[in-house]
Amino acid sequence: MLRTHTCGDLTIADLGKEVQLCGWVQKSRDLGGMTFVDMRDRFGITQLTFNSEDDPQLRAKARELGREFVIRVVGTVIERTNKNVKIPTGEIEIKVLQLEVLNEAKLPPFLIEDETDGGEELRMKYRYLDLRRNPVRQNIVLRHRLAQEIRKYLDAENFLEIETPVLIKSTPEGARDFVVPSRMNPGEFYALPQSPQTFKQLLMVSGFDRYFQIVKCFRDEDLRADRQPEFTQIDCELTFVEQEDILNIFEGLIKHLFKSVKGVVLGDFPRMDYADAMRLYGSDKPDIRFDMKFVELNDLVKDSEFKVFSSAELVVGITAENCVSYTRKQVDALIDFVRKPQIGASGLVYIRYLVDGSLKSSVDKFYTEGQLKAIADKMNAKPGDLMLLMAGPAEKTRKQLSELRLEMARLLGLKSKDTYSPLWVVDFPLLEWDEENNRHHAMHHPFTAPKPADVSKLDSDPLSVRANAYDVVINGVEIGGGSIRIHDRESQSKMFELLGFSPEEAKAQFGFLMDAFTYGAPPHGGIALGFDRLVSIFAGLDSIRDVIAFPKNNAGRDVMIDSPSALDHRQLDELQISLKEVD
Amino acid sequence: MLRTHTCGDLTIADLGKEVQLCGWVQKSRDLGGMTFVDMRDRFGITQLTFNSEDDPQLRAKARELGREFVIRVVGTVIERTNKNVKIPTGEIEIKVLQLEVLNEAKLPPFLIEDETDGGEELRMKYRYLDLRRNPVRQNIVLRHRLAQEIRKYLDAENFLEIETPVLIKSTPEGARDFVVPSRMNPGEFYALPQSPQTFKQLLMVSGFDRYFQIVKCFRDEDLRADRQPEFTQIDCELTFVEQEDILNIFEGLIKHLFKSVKGVVLGDFPRMDYADAMRLYGSDKPDIRFDMKFVELNDLVKDSEFKVFSSAELVVGITAENCVSYTRKQVDALIDFVRKPQIGASGLVYIRYLVDGSLKSSVDKFYTEGQLKAIADKMNAKPGDLMLLMAGPAEKTRKQLSELRLEMARLLGLKSKDTYSPLWVVDFPLLEWDEENNRHHAMHHPFTAPKPADVSKLDSDPLSVRANAYDVVINGVEIGGGSIRIHDRESQSKMFELLGFSPEEAKAQFGFLMDAFTYGAPPHGGIALGFDRLVSIFAGLDSIRDVIAFPKNNAGRDVMIDSPSALDHRQLDELQISLKEVD
Repeated sequence: MLRTHTCGDLTIADLGKEVQLCGWVQKSRDLGGMTFVDMRDRFGITQLTFNSEDDPQLRAKARELGREFVIRVVGTVIERTNKNVKIPTGEIEIKVLQLEVLNEAKLPPFLIEDETDGGEELRMKYRYLDLRRNPVRQNIVLRHRLAQEIRKYLDAENFLEIETPVLIKSTPEGARDFVVPSRMNPGEFYALPQSPQTFKQLLMVSGFDRYFQIVKCFRDEDLRADRQPEFTQIDCELTFVEQEDILNIFEGLIKHLFKSVKGVVLGDFPRMDYADAMRLYGSDKPDIRFDMKFVELNDLVKDSEFKVFSSAELVVGITAENCVSYTRKQVDALIDFVRKPQIGASGLVYIRYLVDGSLKSSVDKFYTEGQLKAIADKMNAKPGDLMLLMAGPAEKTRKQLSELRLEMARLLGLKSKDTYSPLWVVDFPLLEWDEENNRHHAMHHPFTAPKPADVSKLDSDPLSVRANAYDVVINGVEIGGGSIRIHDRESQSKMFELLGFSPEEAKAQFGFLMDAFTYGAPPHGGIALGFDRLVSIFAGLDSIRDVIAFPKNNAGRDVMIDSPSALDHRQLDELQISLKEVD
Repeated sequence: MLRTHTCGDLTIADLGKEVQLCGWVQKSRDLGGMTFVDMRDRFGITQLTFNSEDDPQLRAKARELGREFVIRVVGTVIERTNKNVKIPTGEIEIKVLQLEVLNEAKLPPFLIEDETDGGEELRMKYRYLDLRRNPVRQNIVLRHRLAQEIRKYLDAENFLEIETPVLIKSTPEGARDFVVPSRMNPGEFYALPQSPQTFKQLLMVSGFDRYFQIVKCFRDEDLRADRQPEFTQIDCELTFVEQEDILNIFEGLIKHLFKSVKGVVLGDFPRMDYADAMRLYGSDKPDIRFDMKFVELNDLVKDSEFKVFSSAELVVGITAENCVSYTRKQVDALIDFVRKPQIGASGLVYIRYLVDGSLKSSVDKFYTEGQLKAIADKMNAKPGDLMLLMAGPAEKTRKQLSELRLEMARLLGLKSKDTYSPLWVVDFPLLEWDEENNRHHAMHHPFTAPKPADVSKLDSDPLSVRANAYDVVINGVEIGGGSIRIHDRESQSKMFELLGFSPEEAKAQFGFLMDAFTYGAPPHGGIALGFDRLVSIFAGLDSIRDVIAFPKNNAGRDVMIDSPSALDHRQLDELQISLKEVD
């Protein structure tokens, strides 16, 4: 070893020891005849001292060290006069006897500090330097810790970690696949998995009983702000279980992670029907760190002159506590917010519940104070509160009010990163209607089983059929989801038929799975948790980018290695493909 | 849960309990008024009993169960009259009260037994059934166990598990890449990693100190018998270490795995120079479970009339102990063996050391008994032994004799699967000469550092330069290898130059790494172990195929899912690529 200790090891207990340390020069400063150098590694920072009186040559050499130089020192652990109680090594320093420069460093293009002056693009180009910064490094360490604890928990629960193939088969269903031309089978392609779904089901047919994998998945989608073309799932499947068992085991996993990694003890997760989540929060991933539940008001406004309300499919509101003093300007900002094209509402009605008990609204001319009072009562508002009401087609209006609810929570500081409010959303619909293609889509995926009680409605009223499907949500973020699967050939064929597959298409794409179901397939179900997302919740980040060591940008590019890139013609020839002329 | 216990849980301690079990019908047999069913799951086998006297209807139902039916039973644990001491559950059986068929099964296309009647092709097509067989399932469970223990050890050694990207950049160097067309960047391609080499080095530049990953890697090669297009590496890199440290840590890992998973305590691994390995075993991955070292004989035969020997660059032999009684037919079989085209020798000379102390050889007319005795003495042969000699160009002859040595070991039963003989092969040459392309190749890879003592010969005699590179070998199988890396830009440029890269090519392909080396890159090194290969050693298998849940065949096809496959034209259009006409 080039060192006897790391930069995070030495404390007052080591006084007098001769030690060898390696690390990076974080910074250095001169003070009289002394030079002090903060030397950094992954484990901490240790202060080095060089004294002209003791060794003028060595001190002169120390003065030439630049930021991020890699050095090795031999020295003695001594007590610091000026102690830093904030770090474990803050009571000692190293009186250096020998100094070796292992590698020099050019001045980095941005500051390697917690707060950096480097912009996003520069940081991504020099990601290897960005990763030296504490906040970024800590995310990666956190990710490691979580991965180890996940495996520890699942191993103890008798799950087997089994690798499924990365080079699989493309299926037109669902999101777009990344594909890989096969040189050995010209004209044919592999696809990269969007998830190991069919393989994990086959593993259940094989009798592996409980499977997990922390696995890369791939989706060739146009990247929104917080998507990555490759992402990591905690993928799990279990045999001979019911929904309740899966919820308990994975609630246990999340509790274990919060306890072991963050020291946070979570209570039991509430469970909410999909229908309730939509009705009360306008979202299938409600943020329940705060209340502001939706209150439906159609009954109270159906006879009024205000056509916006009386003719609306849905009139619904939230109560912002203690916000009566919002100024006109603040309220206008809220109206502007809901009118943004991404949200698309035409407006917003507000009712102020003044502290004197009177009510004042933007629709005073249509409603008596008595009517407003009835609304306030239904909304559980009290003097000092501000009520915000929206109206329109039910589904659309709920989504809009959901956005407003989140915005109000943000404005009111209710989205604390130190509060964790998990819940299960259950009883998702099996199908949704795809207007554009005039067909049903599987809400979860085509392998999800309908609730036994609803099977009879598959033909008569398919959209009312609920699935044994569930999502786990923390702080308004969907962390994962799963379902009980279909495990017999007949039901699976029926499902493909409902989804508009011809029998030939179903056979070509999923024949192997349907065949497998005829050889003794057990009842099974599973879940997949988004690992990047989970780490970002633990890290208190809104984005997943900084919990990934080498992320891609919104154009799917790795700007550090400059990928994707053009291929040699020789490579294309071997693959027997050619590029189309790009317009 | 659909069960209270698994099929491996119940023992004599559970007598009298009412239990629920789920599993597969392994087999059933009728005996008088009783039906006995062996029910199987991943955890074991439990015997079920159905008695006509107790419940004729239930027994009738049991008689209709076919092999591989999935069933659920409720019953009482009772003591068996006919105990099976070979299995943990062998002292009890379940007197069944209720029987539910969870899923029927068609007759499987081959026997789900330890010894099956299914051929390779059929087993691969129905891999989900093949995986039900004990020997195959046990390999997958073993693989899981090894993965968990690897992580436990490396985590305790302060390694961080960090995911590196799968969609990276193609580089013409080395083996052929699998590539992925980028829809968002038309005409450009990602590549799948052959290893995370450059990323793990960047992680060291980032200061992560110790990294590991159990990670899929990809190589688009024509598949030999035991290669897979996707395979799994235990990939590791460390900072501020020397070769000796890496050898110790990973020797520790392998010892830990053998101890914790197999209960085998390994002694310290011998270390052997590459030059010695080639000289004594004709291989850089010697199988040292047995001796039969090479003995070079040029000195003793250089003046003889036998031109095959006297004019040969190398005359070399091995001693097969106690094989003097080999018949003419057996010796001829050895001669045929070395003459096989894969080995390509023209022949073989043998000397029998008869038990009476006399010597008899296939070249008696050229050598006196005294000369043969001198050879026998040099070869440490004793009466009763058979000496096998080969001659020719040194490198080629060593390889041929190495094959013969392994064949002899096989014939003599010296390749015991229960003996584990690991060793480190060290001091590999940095470069090798590529006759075909008239250039140097990096023996390990272009990032390997030359030994400091040999750097001065880089220009004058590059092929004599040794590297700080090492392989770990068990029972003649290379389990992994690594090296101390170059960590400064100048040396890396020099290396690319030696390998025939123009400065422009080096920059285009590895500019980001060389840039990184200018910002404070620490000394570092690493290793990658072949996980599939390691599991196969633990499983006592010669092939890696059965330690992979869903392997591909020699044409790179997954015959179960029928992949690769043709794409929709729409998909090709989106990717802006087209297929060339296949002749």
